[in-house]
Amino acid sequence: MNIRFYHARIATMQNDCGIIEGELWVTNNRISYVGTERESQISWDREIDCKGNLLMPGFKNTHTHSAMTFLRSYADDLPLHDWLNKQVFPMEAKLSPDDIYHLSKLAILEYLTSGMTANFDMYITPDTIVQASIDTGFRTVLCGGVSNFLHSVTQVEDWYKKYNNYHELVSFQLGFHAEYTIDRATLMDLASLAKQLKAPVYTHNSETKAEVDACISRNQMTPTAYLDSLGIYDFGGGGYHCVHMTDEDLYIVKRRGVSVVTNPGSNTKLASGIARIEDMLSLGINIAIGTDGPASNNCLDMFREMFLVTGLSKLKNEDASSVDANEVLRMATVNGAKAMCLTDCDCLAEGKLADLIMINLHQPNMQPMNNITKNIVYSGSKTNVKLTMVNGKILYENGEFFVGEDPEAIYAKANEIINRMR
Amino acid sequence: MNIRFYHARIATMQNDCGIIEGELWVTNNRISYVGTERESQISWDREIDCKGNLLMPGFKNTHTHSAMTFLRSYADDLPLHDWLNKQVFPMEAKLSPDDIYHLSKLAILEYLTSGMTANFDMYITPDTIVQASIDTGFRTVLCGGVSNFLHSVTQVEDWYKKYNNYHELVSFQLGFHAEYTIDRATLMDLASLAKQLKAPVYTHNSETKAEVDACISRNQMTPTAYLDSLGIYDFGGGGYHCVHMTDEDLYIVKRRGVSVVTNPGSNTKLASGIARIEDMLSLGINIAIGTDGPASNNCLDMFREMFLVTGLSKLKNEDASSVDANEVLRMATVNGAKAMCLTDCDCLAEGKLADLIMINLHQPNMQPMNNITKNIVYSGSKTNVKLTMVNGKILYENGEFFVGEDPEAIYAKANEIINRMR
Repeated sequence: MNIRFYHARIATMQNDCGIIEGELWVTNNRISYVGTERESQISWDREIDCKGNLLMPGFKNTHTHSAMTFLRSYADDLPLHDWLNKQVFPMEAKLSPDDIYHLSKLAILEYLTSGMTANFDMYITPDTIVQASIDTGFRTVLCGGVSNFLHSVTQVEDWYKKYNNYHELVSFQLGFHAEYTIDRATLMDLASLAKQLKAPVYTHNSETKAEVDACISRNQMTPTAYLDSLGIYDFGGGGYHCVHMTDEDLYIVKRRGVSVVTNPGSNTKLASGIARIEDMLSLGINIAIGTDGPASNNCLDMFREMFLVTGLSKLKNEDASSVDANEVLRMATVNGAKAMCLTDCDCLAEGKLADLIMINLHQPNMQPMNNITKNIVYSGSKTNVKLTMVNGKILYENGEFFVGEDPEAIYAKANEIINRMR
Repeated sequence: MNIRFYHARIATMQNDCGIIEGELWVTNNRISYVGTERESQISWDREIDCKGNLLMPGFKNTHTHSAMTFLRSYADDLPLHDWLNKQVFPMEAKLSPDDIYHLSKLAILEYLTSGMTANFDMYITPDTIVQASIDTGFRTVLCGGVSNFLHSVTQVEDWYKKYNNYHELVSFQLGFHAEYTIDRATLMDLASLAKQLKAPVYTHNSETKAEVDACISRNQMTPTAYLDSLGIYDFGGGGYHCVHMTDEDLYIVKRRGVSVVTNPGSNTKLASGIARIEDMLSLGINIAIGTDGPASNNCLDMFREMFLVTGLSKLKNEDASSVDANEVLRMATVNGAKAMCLTDCDCLAEGKLADLIMINLHQPNMQPMNNITKNIVYSGSKTNVKLTMVNGKILYENGEFFVGEDPEAIYAKANEIINRMR
């Protein structure tokens, strides 16, 4: 499909949050032109009058567990320990690979409504997650989840090799669940594998204070220092959450080129704390944003996350000037792409993959237009997502989904799965 | 207009957050039936198949300054003092009554998209705020804003008498800006007026720590204790924000039947702090929710506010079980109505005013339906507002506005106003 978007405002996010007026062309799955109005000889399959609305790169959901949709609002307002041990773990044990296929699709629908064009997904059965992404047309980076209980290093190595040569919408990165669910020998195996593949490694890191304290008492080091001492971060990677980080942790992260993936919605709802975003920014750390899974957030909404990134920093630092909104917009787009090794779809430029969204500015929450990018971060909402395109294909437009299956069937399946388990 | 909603789920919010299945009838501006399916002899102007979607009372925006839409994203990410003194005050001085008319309309459009059916508005020119509400069909409670600089007690008394006998969509409550903008003599005059009218009094209270400290150094009392000592709360009323409250303040609030109106979005963005919602709840204080003005929030979105009320309490108390979501849903509806003296449209019951909304459950963020009311608080968004009815009239449905004016004209006007001022 060749699609021309015209009469558009465009935030390319290439260098800053500046906005140009003009048009953008999509040829098959790539952007073939971005700039001022221009004559073309191309025969368009579709020409879309943007009516002054904003095109920008799709948001990157840099940490999630998509299939946990089945537990949304299943057991909220409980203390963290009860929630995890009495509700989440016993229910997850009942999931089949096929369940995960359908539940991932439900999450993908919600990602599309929030302008997200890719997710970085760590969950139980990569095979059916991948299938959900391919069948809907969504872009997914899988994150290996090595642990003492679930996936082995060999298993993750196999997936790494398989899914990095499988489908244009799919890639795979090394990862493990968390320091507290993996023994030292397995971590060292994983570090060796990372060295061999020259690959980054991703994990949950310092989400709660209790987790950090327990690691210190086990290893006499914080999780970040401990993992680094084993060579886990020798080729970079990322830490999900990173709420309770010491200065030394941040220096390690910076030195190793590790990305921080902040998950403020989840950290808020589970009372985990507020990450040191301002300090990370001043160190020049690459900060990206994830929703975390829908059981802990419970919303898969980049607009909520963006507001929280800057808002919680303002509260934490008691300073209304903390963390400029334009920095947050970078986190939600280009920084996320960098963290996920998706630099081929990070911004809007000729030759890049066409993963983009149209933000409806003809809505009361986007008016007046004093500052369009700050409007997006501070007052934007899912209602402003007019169109979501992944890999050159429009998957969501004006509230309708084009994902190869009726959303009602996906909703029905999700309800059936949780009802079966009760 | 006689309208029948059928095939509905209904959260009446009459006693708890329970949900019934059935239908709801609107006859002129009142609800004439809520219950299971039933035969009727009424000739309906419209019958709406709700397809299992949820009807519930409209949200009450219990504290706002609507017309501040013009400053949305005008000067964010600044320290509070600079923002207020260098940006907000000089720009407000340039507003005409007619500007406030148009800018209030812009806010009303956004309220409708977020399922809000009434606002409690404190701003410069009540006359044009009222006109904006009447012309659009929106319900507004005006709050007097006595201060040393703007409105006198006599002026507010006149408005109280005028606007409580003016139009079915409009009412007026006594109020003053804040302890730090009014002298003791004027406060005592206002307290006398409240006594004479047996009327509640509303004000900004303890929004920032600096404000509380300054009051203590001026009056040797916190704002709440000081105001109470002058008789301001003898007939109840409300405090906007109430972030920095002592135990004694909370006892006063409870004893006087004063409502707390929490504004977590604004308190977050302006780094003011986190209110003691859990403590207030355990004392049985009536807690309502407001967005505050769009310059400080910047979003007029009850879904954001609801998530923040419970989320920030969880963070503050380091407890994921803090402030149950169903309590928050009560704050956003019945408690708000109580705080605004709008008990005639607080819940869905026969004889009540028809101020209601339809929540679209056929959306990925509302699935699966483990717990519909918790879904609304934790994962709801403006995209879920399918219909907003005020006083029996549908003002917003499926993304379209029915407010007597083209939204594009309202947007154009708002841009024209701010551009004129630059």
